[in-house]
Amino acid sequence: MKATIKDIASATGVSVTTVSLVLNNKPNTISQATKDKILEVARDLDYVPNHMAKSLVTKESKMIGLVVPDIGNNFFADLAKNIENECQKSDYSLILANANNSLSETVKYIDQFISRGVDGLILAFYTDEKQNTKEQLIDKLNNYDIPIVTVDSWIKGLNMPGVSIHHSRGGYMATKYLIGQGHKKIGCITGMKGNYSSDRRLKGYLMALKEAEIESNELFVEEGDYQYNSGYVGALKLIEKGVSAIFACNDLMAYGTYQAIKEKKLKVPDDISVVGFDDLLFSKMLSVPLTTVYQDINLLGSKATELIIDYIKNGISKHEFYRLEPALVIRESTKHV
Amino acid sequence: MKATIKDIASATGVSVTTVSLVLNNKPNTISQATKDKILEVARDLDYVPNHMAKSLVTKESKMIGLVVPDIGNNFFADLAKNIENECQKSDYSLILANANNSLSETVKYIDQFISRGVDGLILAFYTDEKQNTKEQLIDKLNNYDIPIVTVDSWIKGLNMPGVSIHHSRGGYMATKYLIGQGHKKIGCITGMKGNYSSDRRLKGYLMALKEAEIESNELFVEEGDYQYNSGYVGALKLIEKGVSAIFACNDLMAYGTYQAIKEKKLKVPDDISVVGFDDLLFSKMLSVPLTTVYQDINLLGSKATELIIDYIKNGISKHEFYRLEPALVIRESTKHV
Repeated sequence: MKATIKDIASATGVSVTTVSLVLNNKPNTISQATKDKILEVARDLDYVPNHMAKSLVTKESKMIGLVVPDIGNNFFADLAKNIENECQKSDYSLILANANNSLSETVKYIDQFISRGVDGLILAFYTDEKQNTKEQLIDKLNNYDIPIVTVDSWIKGLNMPGVSIHHSRGGYMATKYLIGQGHKKIGCITGMKGNYSSDRRLKGYLMALKEAEIESNELFVEEGDYQYNSGYVGALKLIEKGVSAIFACNDLMAYGTYQAIKEKKLKVPDDISVVGFDDLLFSKMLSVPLTTVYQDINLLGSKATELIIDYIKNGISKHEFYRLEPALVIRESTKHV
Repeated sequence: MKATIKDIASATGVSVTTVSLVLNNKPNTISQATKDKILEVARDLDYVPNHMAKSLVTKESKMIGLVVPDIGNNFFADLAKNIENECQKSDYSLILANANNSLSETVKYIDQFISRGVDGLILAFYTDEKQNTKEQLIDKLNNYDIPIVTVDSWIKGLNMPGVSIHHSRGGYMATKYLIGQGHKKIGCITGMKGNYSSDRRLKGYLMALKEAEIESNELFVEEGDYQYNSGYVGALKLIEKGVSAIFACNDLMAYGTYQAIKEKKLKVPDDISVVGFDDLLFSKMLSVPLTTVYQDINLLGSKATELIIDYIKNGISKHEFYRLEPALVIRESTKHV
């Protein structure tokens, strides 16, 4: 039989409330010795938290925390706005933190949100190859005693529900479209190497090239960081290398690509075709409206909210990861060669 | 002599910590009867909180809360990002809430942030004329027992520090520039009537018309709501009325204006000149780069952060409101007539 908070309370000789406060990491004035004892007994009894039971003992805050890597990127701002709306509908409030592209900041904000008593967390984060504490992070994330779901983010080994767009399929669609227009020298500006969405978008690009029997040239792949400026810098290099088309792994970098093309006195799409990823509001308003991979941010936000609220209310049985279908929005930034 | 927390503790016969927990609205398990007693005595003794003293008794959370009206507007997303960076520099964390253009949501999030123990709050909010609880709101905001500063937001009667751009001067500059280009039929798309920044931008527009002895025509003023779509709708109406230039009170509405002009098979600036306000990143990347009023979001964010941290650390002596200078960025969206 599963151990309960009551069992732990009996075994340690303290109240159920005390055990609950400690196990749920709520603000408390309990001595370190008692805390250690409770945690030890919980481990000994193989205690598994039950969030249904939890809500009976502790007061729910009706607050959900969301951590995003970059609120300055419209994708995350729009996602946050949408998640806030969805939370409202279910009578939850959303508090938000911007982790400034840093995983350690992300962990800091998770700790803070938990200690402030949120009922659950939605996490979006960037990872990169330089991150040498990945194992530690996975271990930490998997062991928080609070419902957590991820959105548009993943590290292999995580044990929680999540949702994202099917990134590799999006990258594949974008590249295949360029190939269909006769392009062979297709550059790619990626996000951070090692980041979930970026690696998969790149994978889709490589898949499409392979399928068309176009040899992939690593010189045509520039590592960016999802920011406007890295698109600009990457595009300048790719233009030098003579590509006829550029797949920028997000719209912000596609905007930077436009700037580089303009500075080189070249034209989109006459000289260079460009495809982006995200379909931000602004992409249709550019000098040359951008062909890009559409992500349904509304659906992404509502699915993430549904997952976390279901997790909070009903506990969790399986850790499913949902992938939403991307779609290519064809505008005016590519041309047949 | 000023009453202290110690005086209240003596008078009620409880510990200083208990009084502090109650007066600072921190999570606690103190009985309602004791709470009521403490609050009553505090009122009787005319207790005025001293935030310096407070930090000696209660543990600081090193957390600042920011409430914005619309995180989907790049102005607020960039502002939030900047404030987060500034907070980091001073070893504070920032938690954020999006109030979805609603004042009641704003108040809800303020209450939640305070009950979660933030050290101070930075507030940005929209007001509008329909808001018939303005007095109540002012009273509520003035009486929170926590440092609060406003950014880009104000209601007459508020008693706290704040910072914003000099909005009326910005509206004046934009309109004067159009007048200087020979325009006489100049339309204006405002934000919400009754909102701080929008009313002042409109005031600047009217000032410039008056100075040039151009009779202002209320038919040329369309009320928007700072969202893309209201710019589109407002511009369609103004085009029907035969304006030769449009001053959109923010860049998002200027983007909507571009869309309306495009749909009417007209051209910016050949048929209609457009000026915006904010200078978002995208404004220079539009089909026709947008002439707009620049707000220094970095300075706005750093000043707001400086104000709140100073307030938290040193308490407050005077409630100054700082106005930053706008600047007109001239690009390609206007033409001499």
